[in-house]
Amino acid sequence: MSRTPGFSFRETARDGDARAGVLTTPHGEVPTPTFMPVGTQGSVKTLTPGEVAATGARIVLGNTYHLWLRPGPELVAHVGGLHAFTRWPHAMLTDSGGFQAFSLADRRTQSEDGFVFRSHLDGARKALTPEVAMQVQGLLSADIAMQLDVCPPGQAPREEVERACRVTTAWGRRCLAAKHPAQALFGIVQGGTDPALRAAHADELGAMPFDGLALGSFSVGEPIARMHEVLAEVAPRLDAARPRYLMGVGTPADLVRAIGAGVDMFDCVLPTRNARNGQALTQQGRIVIKQARYKEDLSPLDPACSCPTCAGGYTRAYLRHLYMAGEILVLRLFSEHNLHLYGRLVREAREAIAAGAYAAFARRWLDGADTAG
Amino acid sequence: MSRTPGFSFRETARDGDARAGVLTTPHGEVPTPTFMPVGTQGSVKTLTPGEVAATGARIVLGNTYHLWLRPGPELVAHVGGLHAFTRWPHAMLTDSGGFQAFSLADRRTQSEDGFVFRSHLDGARKALTPEVAMQVQGLLSADIAMQLDVCPPGQAPREEVERACRVTTAWGRRCLAAKHPAQALFGIVQGGTDPALRAAHADELGAMPFDGLALGSFSVGEPIARMHEVLAEVAPRLDAARPRYLMGVGTPADLVRAIGAGVDMFDCVLPTRNARNGQALTQQGRIVIKQARYKEDLSPLDPACSCPTCAGGYTRAYLRHLYMAGEILVLRLFSEHNLHLYGRLVREAREAIAAGAYAAFARRWLDGADTAG
Repeated sequence: MSRTPGFSFRETARDGDARAGVLTTPHGEVPTPTFMPVGTQGSVKTLTPGEVAATGARIVLGNTYHLWLRPGPELVAHVGGLHAFTRWPHAMLTDSGGFQAFSLADRRTQSEDGFVFRSHLDGARKALTPEVAMQVQGLLSADIAMQLDVCPPGQAPREEVERACRVTTAWGRRCLAAKHPAQALFGIVQGGTDPALRAAHADELGAMPFDGLALGSFSVGEPIARMHEVLAEVAPRLDAARPRYLMGVGTPADLVRAIGAGVDMFDCVLPTRNARNGQALTQQGRIVIKQARYKEDLSPLDPACSCPTCAGGYTRAYLRHLYMAGEILVLRLFSEHNLHLYGRLVREAREAIAAGAYAAFARRWLDGADTAG
Repeated sequence: MSRTPGFSFRETARDGDARAGVLTTPHGEVPTPTFMPVGTQGSVKTLTPGEVAATGARIVLGNTYHLWLRPGPELVAHVGGLHAFTRWPHAMLTDSGGFQAFSLADRRTQSEDGFVFRSHLDGARKALTPEVAMQVQGLLSADIAMQLDVCPPGQAPREEVERACRVTTAWGRRCLAAKHPAQALFGIVQGGTDPALRAAHADELGAMPFDGLALGSFSVGEPIARMHEVLAEVAPRLDAARPRYLMGVGTPADLVRAIGAGVDMFDCVLPTRNARNGQALTQQGRIVIKQARYKEDLSPLDPACSCPTCAGGYTRAYLRHLYMAGEILVLRLFSEHNLHLYGRLVREAREAIAAGAYAAFARRWLDGADTAG
């Protein structure tokens, strides 16, 4: 299906709707299911590229909105693209900038042509059309670009969701026409929590020559249980020849369920954002390190974990001290730990799928896991 | 001279007043001259112990005032001491807490018996006597403790400086009586910028069984040129059988000059604090990364440096972007770079002394170096 040189996807194993595969990019192969740590401003917060790769990640996400405003795509291109700029040697994906232009920018308006907004940094007026989204992402030069789309909130009325599908299809066509020839492009399926709308939009975008298909506007305020019901119906319907990417989701439990529905790719700020809030994720639930119960706790964060934080001999008592004292080191030790958990989750998922044992894997991970965001 | 088991010092080379040596501690040997990175609250800010050791550091400093207030010395002792708590395997020194009780705490008063102050964290009333300073440092269990002393400001009148010498001697006697038997103890020479007062106090403390002698109350507001004049007279006079430690100093140029006067040990927050303010130190001067001139600069921070930041391929343009965007990663990349510079400085100083080439080394480092704090 792919028309982009150097980019391909093949499924290597299947267990129910869950599947394992390999995404080939100009910056190497990415085994799927995969989790993409988020490098919002050209840095997975607190970590070096080497530390991110050590979590098992082979693809990261960059936020076009942020990089567009600062340092600017021309500067990134001048340096040789986002890979050279950030020293990340593996695959990379950029979003379109639309979601953050809508949620972060000042005085934004949306028309059939795109978004107009004011930069949250300096108030500069910016117009984000499908063509601009392709131009900016072309300069950033990640392996995969995302189409500009319309993301209605979780409780949007049906007409707004239908309109989002219609406009997103039109913008997808314009993005395909304007995309950089060396960059893969993913379409983004809308349709809210209506399986019929989702399925129709999936078919519509599936007929277009995107290199992959994403599911947008999930985890935007709708009940999480409803998200998983819709995913179970819609994800298996997305063209199996192309990678399937669930945008902005989610907790470890969300990943386990969505992989079970056939999703291949994920991104979420949760592991790194929660880390900076002093929350360590484990298979048995969440550790909120500021709690007094950890004050004299000499055990590692997670005895089952082999990440540098857990294997490094740091006690919960010390990590709590660092957090209470405002020491930066702990933000990084927690970020590393949480991303290692996600890395382990997708690695074990791939192994379970290959072994035809996904159901047992899912039970193991869902037992005791928490689902809060 | 030393009466503390496992602790000794031997001079291995001399070039003029400059000397190289080896400080032996229960946590390994420390080649001198040495620079001690400051781990204020049990962490050299932003860095792991492994990264600190990779800069060449074999001894770090912990701040008793901070650790006393949070997490408390009993907790640190419960965990097995500051080494076990922080995972630093090499030598460690703690200050007495007096300097910071005086400069940071609220409503502090000083008497012949010690300091009384209110914690800057929760207002709790604390009394810091020589015996308490020994007890708290004993619980923290660094290899080297510092006596409680009185630090008059740089412009203090002569009577205040004389009184500081007198009280410091009395407190030194009480600290020697109260110290933990397994912990080395250094005395602290006062005397302001009067070489005669300094010399007299050095002789007075030198007659007491301290394991090392420190020079306190330098770089406290007096002209830096005056500090170096006094150091050139006083440092060589400190008992050569024991390590000489210049507290809280300073810039690379300060180290080069003070090593030339015969100082063996240094600590200073400058390299890590300036790093967090976006300042990288190099042998050719200071790089203030926010300056617009670095916006498109594709060169490494310091082409002459082999630290992970400079060897890692990060450009000044990227480091500037991280700094402007408020990304934590850059604080760490700069901290690592600056501590590597200090590590290189003392290593090259040791080599130069051993080779009888200290004057040429000093000229090389003082040429182009800046001296601002």
